[in-house]
Amino acid sequence: MKKRIAILGSTGSIGRQALEVIREFPEQFEVVALAAGSNLDLLIEQAAIFRPKYLAIGEPSLYQELQARTPDQRIKLSAGLEGLIDIGTLPEVDLVLTAVVGSVGIKPTLAAIEAGKDIALANKETLVAAGSIIMAAAAKYGVEIIPVDSEHSAVFQCLEGKDSNQVERLLITASGGPFRTYTPEQLEHVTLEQALKHPNWNMGGKITIDSATMFNKGLEIIEAHWLFGVSFDRITPVIHPESIVHSLVEFKDGSFLAQLGLCDMRLPIQLALTYPERLTYPFPRFNFNNPLALNFEPVNYDLFPAITLAYEAGCKGGSLPVVLNAANEEAVGAFLTRKIGFTKIVRIVSEVMGYHQKEAFSIQPDLEEIMAVDQWARAAAQRLIETNGGNS
Amino acid sequence: MKKRIAILGSTGSIGRQALEVIREFPEQFEVVALAAGSNLDLLIEQAAIFRPKYLAIGEPSLYQELQARTPDQRIKLSAGLEGLIDIGTLPEVDLVLTAVVGSVGIKPTLAAIEAGKDIALANKETLVAAGSIIMAAAAKYGVEIIPVDSEHSAVFQCLEGKDSNQVERLLITASGGPFRTYTPEQLEHVTLEQALKHPNWNMGGKITIDSATMFNKGLEIIEAHWLFGVSFDRITPVIHPESIVHSLVEFKDGSFLAQLGLCDMRLPIQLALTYPERLTYPFPRFNFNNPLALNFEPVNYDLFPAITLAYEAGCKGGSLPVVLNAANEEAVGAFLTRKIGFTKIVRIVSEVMGYHQKEAFSIQPDLEEIMAVDQWARAAAQRLIETNGGNS
Repeated sequence: MKKRIAILGSTGSIGRQALEVIREFPEQFEVVALAAGSNLDLLIEQAAIFRPKYLAIGEPSLYQELQARTPDQRIKLSAGLEGLIDIGTLPEVDLVLTAVVGSVGIKPTLAAIEAGKDIALANKETLVAAGSIIMAAAAKYGVEIIPVDSEHSAVFQCLEGKDSNQVERLLITASGGPFRTYTPEQLEHVTLEQALKHPNWNMGGKITIDSATMFNKGLEIIEAHWLFGVSFDRITPVIHPESIVHSLVEFKDGSFLAQLGLCDMRLPIQLALTYPERLTYPFPRFNFNNPLALNFEPVNYDLFPAITLAYEAGCKGGSLPVVLNAANEEAVGAFLTRKIGFTKIVRIVSEVMGYHQKEAFSIQPDLEEIMAVDQWARAAAQRLIETNGGNS
Repeated sequence: MKKRIAILGSTGSIGRQALEVIREFPEQFEVVALAAGSNLDLLIEQAAIFRPKYLAIGEPSLYQELQARTPDQRIKLSAGLEGLIDIGTLPEVDLVLTAVVGSVGIKPTLAAIEAGKDIALANKETLVAAGSIIMAAAAKYGVEIIPVDSEHSAVFQCLEGKDSNQVERLLITASGGPFRTYTPEQLEHVTLEQALKHPNWNMGGKITIDSATMFNKGLEIIEAHWLFGVSFDRITPVIHPESIVHSLVEFKDGSFLAQLGLCDMRLPIQLALTYPERLTYPFPRFNFNNPLALNFEPVNYDLFPAITLAYEAGCKGGSLPVVLNAANEEAVGAFLTRKIGFTKIVRIVSEVMGYHQKEAFSIQPDLEEIMAVDQWARAAAQRLIETNGGNS
C-alpha cells in the first residue's frame, strides 16, 4: 500500500527535494496534499504533476488566484494558517512532512500530531520554540517524529535499535560555514553575497545565513535536546568542514557511531519518508573509491557567539528559546534585505534575549504564551533593526 | 546476577586484555574457567587473582606441572583439546570467550555452541575454516555470536537494530600495516623486526604479521561474510591509516554508519562481554577535543596479493579457506622463526592453494574433513618452507 503524504512547505528547498524523491518512487508514495507559503506558480506546477486532492496557500491574499488557477473542482482548496492545519490533519494522510520555515510551523505540526500523523520534521523552529509541548504530544498520541535535518537524521540513525540509556554524548557536526577561518575583524565586513555561499550545502536563504552565523548549529543543539532527550551538557558541536559525517553518537563504553553520506538533503528526506524502510537511492551516491580526508576540529566559540546564546537559551529553557528563534528570524530577514550587517544578527538576538530575561521570562509557557512571546520578540528585534541598523 | 565467563586462551593478547576489563567490573562478571595454550606461569598467576573453578592447559605435557602448582583441590583441571572442550561446555558458564589463536579453536567453539553458550568470538580461524558449520550450529542452538575483532565489532554495532536486508555493502577498514607505502621491491627486503611494528595496534605476533601481509584483512573479509551473511562482492576493504574508524556499513539508501574509537582492543572485548549492555569504559577514551584528520584510500591489491587470495578462497568456498588459513599459519610461523622471507608467506599460501584446487578440493567439507585438509595444508606448507625457504 502506498504511503500517503502531505507536505507543508512544498515549494521551499526541502519541499521541492521531497517531491524529487517521491517522483522516483511512484509505487511507494501518494501525494495527498500540498501547502505552500506564497509561491503560487510553483504550487500550481507541482499540483499538475503530483495531482494532490488538497492544496493550501499560506498567504491568504493569494487564495482567489489559487481558486482561479485550479479548474479541477474535485481539488479542495484552503488558505492561511487554517489551511496548513487542515492539510496536516487530513484523515487520508499517513505522514506529514513539515517543511515550512519559521515558527509558523508550530501550530500545524502540533495539530498533525494530535491527529495521529507521523511527522517528518524539517521545521526546526517547532522544536526550538515548543519542544516540550511537541514531544509530550508525540508521546501522548504515539506518533513517530522522524527528523529531516541531516544532523538529526544522523543521530536518529545511530540511535536506531540502541538503548538511549547507553548514550554518553551527541556530537553535532558543523561545516563551520563560509567564515570558519575568519578573524573577528573580517567577520564585521562580511557581505550578503559571501554569507549566501555555503561551502557544502545547497539550502534555502534563511538556513544558509544561519549556517554562516552558526545560529543554525545552536538551533540544532536545542532541537537535538528535545528529539533525543539528551541534556545540553552532553551535546557538543564539532567542526567538520567536509560535511560528510553528519553527526556522531558517543556511547557510555567509549564507542562512537557516525552517519556519513553525500551533502544531499534528498538522502535524509528519503529516509524520513520511507522509514522504517530504506529504498535504493536513485541519485548519485557517496563512495570510498577515491582518497578522502575527513577533518574535525573544536568550535571557536569566541568567533561564533550564536552557539553560546543557544546553549544559554536551551539550558534556561521556558520562553527563552522562543525569543532566540524569533529575534534571529527577524534579524536574518533584515540581513537578507541589507538592512543590517552580518554581526548585527547576533547582537540583536542577544539584546532581545536580555530584555526578555529581565522582564517577561516564563518557565513553562503554553502555546498561546509561546506565540505571544514570539510576536513580542519579533517586534523588539524590529525596533532594534530600525534604530540600530545603520550603525552596523 | 553476574555473567559467568569462560576464557579459552586467557594468556594470549586478547585473553589478558579481557581479564583487565573483567577486573574493572567485579560486580558484573565471574570468571568460572580459564584455559591457556602453554603459558603455565601466567595461567597460575591469573588463577590466583580470578579464582576460577576450572583450569585447562592446551599443551598436554604441562598437565602434571599444572597439577603440582594448583594446591587447591576444589579447582578442576584438564588438558589438551579435550580440556578446551570441557571448559567451553561447562553448565555453569554463560559466555565463552574463544581467544585461542589458529584452527585449534574450531572444535571447542563448536562444542560451546552445541552446549548453548553465547560466544565472544576472537578466534577468526574458526569462521574462516568452518564458517558454514559454525553459523548453522549457532542458528540451530539459538546462541549469539558476538565478534571481538575491532572490525567485526564495528559492523556488529552498525547493524544492531537494523534490518539486514537494508545492507548494501560492508567496508572493512585496514590500517594498511607498516608497509602500505612500500614498493614491491622494498617489500622483498622486509625484516621480522619491521613487520612486527604495527603502526597503530598492539597485538599478538601472528596477527601483527598478518596485518603486514594484509592476510589479516583477507581473513576478516571471509569472517565478515559468515558473521553477517553478506556476499563477497559486497564486502570491500578500505585503507584507513589512523585506525579510528573500525569499519563501516553502507545501506541501500546511500547512508553509511561507521563505528569509531581508540585503537584499544579492550573496547570491543568489553562490548562482547557486556552485550547487549554497555558499561562506562574505565580506561582512556577517544575524544574530539583536538584537531583530527581521518584518511581513507583504496587498497593497493598489487602490493598485497593476500587479499586477492582471500577473495578467491572465500568465493570458491568449501575447503579452500581452510587451506588459505592453515598454509598462512605455517608460513607466518616460519617467518617469525626467520626460516623464510616476508614475501614468501604469500607465495607459499598461493602455491598450497593451487595444489589443493587441482587435487583435493571439497565443496562441503564436514568437520573431520576440515581438520584433515588443515593438516594436509600445514604439511604442504612445511614442505615448501623447507625446500624453498633459503631462496627467499
